[in-house]
Amino acid sequence: MKHFFLLAVAMLLTCFGANAQSKFVTDTIYSEILGSPRAYTVYLPASFDKNPGKQYPVLYLLHGLYGKNSDWQDMSQLKLIADKLTRNGTIDEMVIVTPDAHQGLPNSQPGYFNLPEWRYEDFFFQEFMPQIEKKYRIIGDKRHRAIAGLSMGGGGTTGYCQHHPEAFAAAYPMSALMSIPLDRRSPSPNSFDDKLTKSCLENDCVEFVLNADEATKQALRTIDWYIDCGDDDFLLDCNLAIYQAMRDNKIPAQLRVRDGVHNWEYWSSALYDCLPFVNRSFKK
Amino acid sequence: MKHFFLLAVAMLLTCFGANAQSKFVTDTIYSEILGSPRAYTVYLPASFDKNPGKQYPVLYLLHGLYGKNSDWQDMSQLKLIADKLTRNGTIDEMVIVTPDAHQGLPNSQPGYFNLPEWRYEDFFFQEFMPQIEKKYRIIGDKRHRAIAGLSMGGGGTTGYCQHHPEAFAAAYPMSALMSIPLDRRSPSPNSFDDKLTKSCLENDCVEFVLNADEATKQALRTIDWYIDCGDDDFLLDCNLAIYQAMRDNKIPAQLRVRDGVHNWEYWSSALYDCLPFVNRSFKK
Amino acid sequence: MKHFFLLAVAMLLTCFGANAQSKFVTDTIYSEILGSPRAYTVYLPASFDKNPGKQYPVLYLLHGLYGKNSDWQDMSQLKLIADKLTRNGTIDEMVIVTPDAHQGLPNSQPGYFNLPEWRYEDFFFQEFMPQIEKKYRIIGDKRHRAIAGLSMGGGGTTGYCQHHPEAFAAAYPMSALMSIPLDRRSPSPNSFDDKLTKSCLENDCVEFVLNADEATKQALRTIDWYIDCGDDDFLLDCNLAIYQAMRDNKIPAQLRVRDGVHNWEYWSSALYDCLPFVNRSFKK
Amino acid sequence: MKHFFLLAVAMLLTCFGANAQSKFVTDTIYSEILGSPRAYTVYLPASFDKNPGKQYPVLYLLHGLYGKNSDWQDMSQLKLIADKLTRNGTIDEMVIVTPDAHQGLPNSQPGYFNLPEWRYEDFFFQEFMPQIEKKYRIIGDKRHRAIAGLSMGGGGTTGYCQHHPEAFAAAYPMSALMSIPLDRRSPSPNSFDDKLTKSCLENDCVEFVLNADEATKQALRTIDWYIDCGDDDFLLDCNLAIYQAMRDNKIPAQLRVRDGVHNWEYWSSALYDCLPFVNRSFKK
Repeated sequence: MKHFFLLAVAMLLTCFGANAQSKFVTDTIYSEILGSPRAYTVYLPASFDKNPGKQYPVLYLLHGLYGKNSDWQDMSQLKLIADKLTRNGTIDEMVIVTPDAHQGLPNSQPGYFNLPEWRYEDFFFQEFMPQIEKKYRIIGDKRHRAIAGLSMGGGGTTGYCQHHPEAFAAAYPMSALMSIPLDRRSPSPNSFDDKLTKSCLENDCVEFVLNADEATKQALRTIDWYIDCGDDDFLLDCNLAIYQAMRDNKIPAQLRVRDGVHNWEYWSSALYDCLPFVNRSFKK
Repeated sequence: MKHFFLLAVAMLLTCFGANAQSKFVTDTIYSEILGSPRAYTVYLPASFDKNPGKQYPVLYLLHGLYGKNSDWQDMSQLKLIADKLTRNGTIDEMVIVTPDAHQGLPNSQPGYFNLPEWRYEDFFFQEFMPQIEKKYRIIGDKRHRAIAGLSMGGGGTTGYCQHHPEAFAAAYPMSALMSIPLDRRSPSPNSFDDKLTKSCLENDCVEFVLNADEATKQALRTIDWYIDCGDDDFLLDCNLAIYQAMRDNKIPAQLRVRDGVHNWEYWSSALYDCLPFVNRSFKK
Repeated sequence: MKHFFLLAVAMLLTCFGANAQSKFVTDTIYSEILGSPRAYTVYLPASFDKNPGKQYPVLYLLHGLYGKNSDWQDMSQLKLIADKLTRNGTIDEMVIVTPDAHQGLPNSQPGYFNLPEWRYEDFFFQEFMPQIEKKYRIIGDKRHRAIAGLSMGGGGTTGYCQHHPEAFAAAYPMSALMSIPLDRRSPSPNSFDDKLTKSCLENDCVEFVLNADEATKQALRTIDWYIDCGDDDFLLDCNLAIYQAMRDNKIPAQLRVRDGVHNWEYWSSALYDCLPFVNRSFKK
Repeated sequence: MKHFFLLAVAMLLTCFGANAQSKFVTDTIYSEILGSPRAYTVYLPASFDKNPGKQYPVLYLLHGLYGKNSDWQDMSQLKLIADKLTRNGTIDEMVIVTPDAHQGLPNSQPGYFNLPEWRYEDFFFQEFMPQIEKKYRIIGDKRHRAIAGLSMGGGGTTGYCQHHPEAFAAAYPMSALMSIPLDRRSPSPNSFDDKLTKSCLENDCVEFVLNADEATKQALRTIDWYIDCGDDDFLLDCNLAIYQAMRDNKIPAQLRVRDGVHNWEYWSSALYDCLPFVNRSFKK
């Protein structure tokens, strides 16, 4: 068996090179605001350990409803795709952070925005970002910070940029829950969790654009936007609506409607566009 | 929690439709030839259970060295991609079978070809194919049967078509071990398993083409070939060599060199080309 | 110079093969309905001349405002793309017809629909299609006839399928003038030709879907639809509107919003999707 | 008709914006070395005229045998694609120069390298580049200068980088004449022009790599290489050969074999990869 193991190692070294590798790290931070520990997963690029003085740009990548911090690691090809795009020069090395907004309250998935009993957005900006950016040597300014996410995390992506436009250079919401679809606002078999519904309606991303004053619009224009949603996605309409609202208010954005539904094939393949897009913003 | 569970079910039904779904089935058949049970995994398209009289074309999809029957299910997005391409009309429903050639002999991975103590190719054609094609309602003629595979399974794909050109309409080897690279033929840290090396040299796919007589070439021309290998793959050269040999002998083939190395990002993304390619052969 | 010419010919033969080639033919038919001759251009696949008994499926491909029958030949890579997709097996040979709706009335571009003084739609279905399909050996049934077009021709594509759903298997409108945008309905620097505006409002494609009765919807469902429009196209909204109307009325359609504006880069690259899409409909 | 003209202008302004536009300029410079004037065509980005103090990176883009300076303007979608990639942020503005090596000697197309009676390479580096880079406000250092070209121009691209590695940051040869294929070296109907054959054999790009000393290899490694050739191209083998030679000598390069032959569909679509590739080199 030892022979066998050596062969396997030799093959791995041959295939992937004996150089430093990128890796995922999973850890936990304790949140005073939420009164509990929160897990997170971080993709660290290949040079991270051997260049202890180097600082990196960062992409925050948010999971969806019923998801958790390890989803992007487990369900998409995030590491393989980031490694490939780095290797062929399409992107520069970056740190990618996937936080956890899983089941914050008993039997409830209240999502990324603040509720009186679940101040997740406060946690994110006041505790999570500062600690993560210190621990993982993030450059830490607007020009080198981006955010993306799927479904509920696409809504979080958009809402966080709307509330904190000074924080991010680029936003890439995927299949985003930009607002609660009309047919899910009243109780029905299709309804979301009550607290999530309440939270999303209070932070409706489409309404935010429609009601923005000129200073707010000007702030939104400092972010590079890319809205990506499948043609058969049940959330398509709110993604079209926010794109139209942004365009009509002269807030530039990319829009893509690719073939697809609300699943990991769409989100994994979106990374081929998302990572180069945020990388270009980092290099402006 | 019941409320929570219902919500989750409702959401799944909403996202994916309440209709019949495709699925993976894993099972085992006993091989008299190998003297042991062999596992396999099958992708059954959405209509399979509700149309008990319908017959399907089949794609055999082979794993690589150190792999096993469940690799395509676990490591690639096979189900999501097959579902998507079926839904958008790019492919028709097909059954996809992923057999197991894992660790056939103690501490050895002898691969897809016959050795005296490991008659896997005999097993495949004499036991596996007949039983699978009966059990899963496969049409079962050359025109509706294709084969693909990665690395060692790409060599298996090519060798099986060379030995049994009457069996397959299309072949799509990925990053294929078409022959043992020269620098791995003598003992070295990079060497493969001795039995695999012996087996692959006896069934060298490039030599087969170079030595083919006219009748053999004519038989190879009845198969649609698609050779796909990454530019940074350590097996690139033998893939280029077989393409050049086939072209020079007027055996038509597609060749693609995409960006990539020897990993699952390459093989999962290859399915977007592989499935439509074999589907076109089925519809000729 | 003769030496030089021979070299050039030898090189062409080497590059492209000495076999029969596809070609464009331009000709004219006299329309009794319009009281004038109308030009057209036809792409004939490579086998057309040497297989005088063979019949083909047909794609009608419509030009836009201020365009003419030769636009697809001159401005896009139609021939190169059709040849490539045929050569690699993605599509079967088809005849592609590009009619002419250029400047029908003095100083006016009234488009593809009937006006009292410009009965182009009558000409198309009563004179053009029957004569073309006889002359160029078109199979001539619904299952082997498709239509596509850009801008005003995308509106024509959609309207023709709405008025004659029995005629076409597939429709691929590109950047389509599905209706006159609101800000162009009253006189303004952006207004279209008056007659075109009148004609398009009378044949508003979005309104047609919204007002369709169940039998009409059922007829529209017999066509494979693919709506393709750029994210920065000034006609995006009416394309999103018709997709949403069709989806809400359970008329299946593909939607793609790719990066782009209202120009030939978009339309030429659309052919990579359009030709395989209509080919799949031909093969159902 | 004036009304009609205004409409057309209004539509153009609407579609394309009233802002400054990119444009092609064609001009001539007199070459003392060649003893004759040589034409060229330049793509100037949208900001060129309005920012008279701005300097730009430059891409030299070479035509093929029997081609001329206006080929890229006339036969590809260079302007549309460069405009699109600039507009969506994939590339920064650059100047693209297409020189002319057309029929340099009576009845002969001697190509891009020096012959006693046709010192084109000397002209290019001693006269053309200096004058062009001054006239069109090119930054003019290695880091902001790239070269690409098709067929004979792909050989020119590679040879110029081999002879002048200090001059270019990136090279993107397409379907390149890296050396004269063996079956065209002796007189035959397939032979190239005698002078071209002589010139290419003297400047064989594959041999150059195979014979390079360590200092030369080190110089070649300062260039970003991207080799792109169709699977059905008659020049495929010499492109594979140079890639293999470079890889074996640890000169990093990208390789792509896409579906295609030796034609403008391949070269026009290559621009979607070529322009972002050279742009990334400019931004390192």
